[in-house]
Amino acid sequence: SVNPDLASERQIASFSVEKLTALLDGSAEQTRIRRAVVEAIESDPVFSRENQYFQTQNERYESAVRKAVHLQKKMHEMGWTENGPEYKYIYRALSGDVAFLLHRVFMRSISVLGSDKQIAKWIPLATQHKLIGSYAQTELGHGTYLQGLETTAVFDIATQEFILNTPKISAMKWWPGDMGRSATHTVVFAQLYVHGKCYGIHPFIVQIRSLQDHSLCPGVTAGDIGPKMNFEHIDNGYLLLKNVRIPRENMLSKFCEVQPDGTYVKQGSQKINYFTMTTVRISLISDEVLTPLMKACTIAIRYSVVRRQSKLKPGEQEAKILDYQTQQEKLLPQLAAAYAFHFIDDYLQELFNRGYREIQKKNFDMLPELHALSSGFKAMITQHCTAGVEICLRACGGHGYSLLSGLPSLYTKILASCIYEGENTILLLQAARFLIKCFMAASAGQPVPLSATYLAAVKHGKCPAKNKLDFLSPDIYTEAYQHVAVRLTSSTAAKLQDLIQSGVKKHDAWNQCTVQLVQAAKAHCHYIAVKNFAETVEKLETKAGIQKIMKHLCDLFALHGIFSNTGAFLHDGYISAAQMDMVTASYLDLLAVIRKDAVPLVDAFDFTDKSLNSALGSYDGQVYQRLYKWAQKSPTNQMSPAYERYLKPLLHNTLSKL
Amino acid sequence: SVNPDLASERQIASFSVEKLTALLDGSAEQTRIRRAVVEAIESDPVFSRENQYFQTQNERYESAVRKAVHLQKKMHEMGWTENGPEYKYIYRALSGDVAFLLHRVFMRSISVLGSDKQIAKWIPLATQHKLIGSYAQTELGHGTYLQGLETTAVFDIATQEFILNTPKISAMKWWPGDMGRSATHTVVFAQLYVHGKCYGIHPFIVQIRSLQDHSLCPGVTAGDIGPKMNFEHIDNGYLLLKNVRIPRENMLSKFCEVQPDGTYVKQGSQKINYFTMTTVRISLISDEVLTPLMKACTIAIRYSVVRRQSKLKPGEQEAKILDYQTQQEKLLPQLAAAYAFHFIDDYLQELFNRGYREIQKKNFDMLPELHALSSGFKAMITQHCTAGVEICLRACGGHGYSLLSGLPSLYTKILASCIYEGENTILLLQAARFLIKCFMAASAGQPVPLSATYLAAVKHGKCPAKNKLDFLSPDIYTEAYQHVAVRLTSSTAAKLQDLIQSGVKKHDAWNQCTVQLVQAAKAHCHYIAVKNFAETVEKLETKAGIQKIMKHLCDLFALHGIFSNTGAFLHDGYISAAQMDMVTASYLDLLAVIRKDAVPLVDAFDFTDKSLNSALGSYDGQVYQRLYKWAQKSPTNQMSPAYERYLKPLLHNTLSKL
Repeated sequence: SVNPDLASERQIASFSVEKLTALLDGSAEQTRIRRAVVEAIESDPVFSRENQYFQTQNERYESAVRKAVHLQKKMHEMGWTENGPEYKYIYRALSGDVAFLLHRVFMRSISVLGSDKQIAKWIPLATQHKLIGSYAQTELGHGTYLQGLETTAVFDIATQEFILNTPKISAMKWWPGDMGRSATHTVVFAQLYVHGKCYGIHPFIVQIRSLQDHSLCPGVTAGDIGPKMNFEHIDNGYLLLKNVRIPRENMLSKFCEVQPDGTYVKQGSQKINYFTMTTVRISLISDEVLTPLMKACTIAIRYSVVRRQSKLKPGEQEAKILDYQTQQEKLLPQLAAAYAFHFIDDYLQELFNRGYREIQKKNFDMLPELHALSSGFKAMITQHCTAGVEICLRACGGHGYSLLSGLPSLYTKILASCIYEGENTILLLQAARFLIKCFMAASAGQPVPLSATYLAAVKHGKCPAKNKLDFLSPDIYTEAYQHVAVRLTSSTAAKLQDLIQSGVKKHDAWNQCTVQLVQAAKAHCHYIAVKNFAETVEKLETKAGIQKIMKHLCDLFALHGIFSNTGAFLHDGYISAAQMDMVTASYLDLLAVIRKDAVPLVDAFDFTDKSLNSALGSYDGQVYQRLYKWAQKSPTNQMSPAYERYLKPLLHNTLSKL
Repeated sequence: SVNPDLASERQIASFSVEKLTALLDGSAEQTRIRRAVVEAIESDPVFSRENQYFQTQNERYESAVRKAVHLQKKMHEMGWTENGPEYKYIYRALSGDVAFLLHRVFMRSISVLGSDKQIAKWIPLATQHKLIGSYAQTELGHGTYLQGLETTAVFDIATQEFILNTPKISAMKWWPGDMGRSATHTVVFAQLYVHGKCYGIHPFIVQIRSLQDHSLCPGVTAGDIGPKMNFEHIDNGYLLLKNVRIPRENMLSKFCEVQPDGTYVKQGSQKINYFTMTTVRISLISDEVLTPLMKACTIAIRYSVVRRQSKLKPGEQEAKILDYQTQQEKLLPQLAAAYAFHFIDDYLQELFNRGYREIQKKNFDMLPELHALSSGFKAMITQHCTAGVEICLRACGGHGYSLLSGLPSLYTKILASCIYEGENTILLLQAARFLIKCFMAASAGQPVPLSATYLAAVKHGKCPAKNKLDFLSPDIYTEAYQHVAVRLTSSTAAKLQDLIQSGVKKHDAWNQCTVQLVQAAKAHCHYIAVKNFAETVEKLETKAGIQKIMKHLCDLFALHGIFSNTGAFLHDGYISAAQMDMVTASYLDLLAVIRKDAVPLVDAFDFTDKSLNSALGSYDGQVYQRLYKWAQKSPTNQMSPAYERYLKPLLHNTLSKL
């Protein structure tokens, strides 16, 4: 039975939840396929996450391996293939709780970096799981700066082998997933040496464990890097190599080859490979970043209409906490951001598909823009969503702090997305470098990529809004965002030039501008996200019911961004103090409007109870019953030796005399 | 041997680390006492936290109980007493990793709420550990709003007993520490009923487990609430009571008593009790909030001079990451905040001591101000420090994400401080209520408490700064903070009055202003923190070397607050756009100045390696060696059944045919 405090929220929905779900999925047919996958996965007890919060790191690893193996069987049973329409929903249905994800990266890197011969040899072995692969790039002392990697691969012309070594402790491979305990093979990135000359970083296939008994190969030391904030199910590993010999054919050689006589040959263009790296950043947004935020919103918002605390009006019963303005101000902007980022994800996917088509035609013109957008948005979205999940957790008070709420795990996992696949600050500076270049080009009257053309149109006007309702006009707020992005880019470009002209060296000048460059890159992405949301809403004109609520969310996303960062808009007077008060008024009004549809808006994300795995967020809102039931199953409710060993002697005063 | 990249940082210190440590401790003598306690605790293997990151919740609990029992012995051995000078350092030396903290709260509540007779009976039993106490206030459905608690205590005149019940699942006691598995007794807060009339919430001593065999008493259901984000060492518990009878004498009766005939008698003033609640909020700041931030700064800053990544200048070796402006901008403001909050903690301690002396003279005039300050600062400091620890964690990239860095545990623990002892938003609104009252009184020419007198002096001037150096003047920035606090308080008071005058009911009007009230309360606390830091620096004139670096930190704390919240200062033009650019310039300049002393500034916190328990933060900076050594000890490097069960059949293709 549904908690009446939750049921009543659903009765007042201003739109069709089912239609919104279909919009988010792309179509009603996609929704049907997704639900079928979820149903098949969740009805299979092997894939259960029921005991997840009670398990040790060892148990989580074992369970993830079991699931990965079972998944092969399941896919065969269900007739799912890697190219089928179901495939993209499997990982989401498993909530990522499965091993061998790096096995897929191993395969992809061979497909992209390997010669046809290498692909023909290794991909079938990997597909049939005759080996388990990993991907060993990051080292204990080296992450971001690939050129600094210290692992070496020296070509031995006599034996036609490469000799691999991790010469120092900082050269040890560290972090590769699936490598700590599972992998038999891995792609190792190492500095290539031929005849004493260094040719830089190249990829090599290295066997690390016996295919017979899984023992470590000669010269190999490997293991698990130990406890982490999350990812207990993954065996992130370390790897030391001491004179490990591999045949010449194991250097992945689509782009570079060492011939038998030691001649180093470059061939083809690596640009497509570069493109692959940027698409990875975009592809992780949906599953690793948006889904957790959507889950956190679902949990926190359902809980906030079931939890009653204190009184809003004297004499009445205690109020739902979502009726407090402060609680709305915590949660509803996160909800709006989840929608905004869902739509920007669509935009990025489309853009990258277009880019891919161009690149296949050997047109690489879009690459710098795609790199900047993938970098900037990866950083912006992971940052916002991580902060959003944390806000949801805190907004649930003590119960949010229990692992049984599901929120701590969502937080500790999403936090990693700010670091992996490019640390966010580094990525924002990459995006900023592109922006500065575009700004300079635009100032010189040269053409610039589409997403940056607005930088050419420096406007010195003022915001034309006359009352608070004007701030519900997408033109008004989109232009305000544009103005700020232009101002931050141009002022930082000016500072950079001033420094250089005053004699500061270029790299020093760059470093002295980086705090402001990061701000400019964020402003650029925020502008595009707002603009894209507004355009998406406009295109919904045939779906009146949904368009209206999406318009509210778009307004909230935009105004929350201004309200949280008023200085950027006030700085040069583009928005005046009086106008900023209008923004605040409209923003606070919107909270009360969207609050009414808050539960239907999270229902539309369509998470099952099993996928939320949360005592606070279930569809029926029976929060307290679930917390109590789950707590009773905790291993902390088994007998502890602490009583006999310490408590009893203490209480019975039979401890050796003090 | 100390890593040379760390050693070189210490050679350029601009001040005496030892003198700064003594300043932080209060005197060189205090430093000596503290170090003796730390040495005694850390040299005792029972108190080791070496394996903490590898332990399960059950193991953590068992270890914490063992330590608590052993601590009794240790104190006796060392001659430490609860009134001795060593006592306050013990908890810090243990890093809080010990059980029976609620036993102390149990004792304090009896001392404060019990009659002399009750104190005489229970305190000796508790002191000698003939029982283990807990404190059961929070319920599954009730936290903040104490009047909403649902547990009942009905007086049975026939048997002279109270009958205790938790009538609904939401009435179940939930969260009390030491209660899940250890406690034999607890103080239960329940609605008192006599002759069918409810007299509100009162405290009752209830035995929950047998003193003989620790089995649950009749009518009692209790256990552990399961996994949490941290506090694995504490057995936070649940408690269901079904017709549990306790003698009339077990109602704590210093202030209220039920006489044998059922007459309810009030006696004395509860105001002193109210004062106790506010002091708890202040007392937790040092150990639970500042120490974790100081530890996080120590770890992240030491790591940032040892970690080298990418190049600042072409051709040079990779740069220390602390030499990047963006890294400085992450870490150094946290360092400045740690010092700012240390000094505000001193200020609050002094104020509360003064308040206590007044209260002992039956003068309760200071209570509202003390309540507002304890609420506001508890919220502000826990919020800032939690965010600061998170920034430190993220600033260490992948290695920060490993539990072995120590940072995840610091974060997940400090996060709870935003929720317990009053949820932060609620507390900020309490502080805001006081501010609004003071503002109204001041506007009407009435006297207001000292910390709020500035509200009377509404100034409409402009910031007089003419160049970026002017913003290094404490008068300039302190006045700017004051201006913002006054503006936010007065504008919110005006909005509140407008709403009420336009016919909105008072409680609705209040709710509609809460987002802005929270801002006002934060601005008030921030102003006081800046002002106090500036005054503290001024008093250091006899300590020239230290005064200089403290002045830099004070400037950084103040300017970072402006830089991060520019809108508040720009809004009414108090600071102009041109002046804000000066703030930014001065702020960024300061980062480069303080960076030079960053390591000595964290060395002065004087944490031992054992107390940091971090592979990244040790005094010798041997980061990679430690990470590798620790990882090898992880239980995840033991044999896993996953190989025989799943991996081997998969690799050998002996899984049942797909």
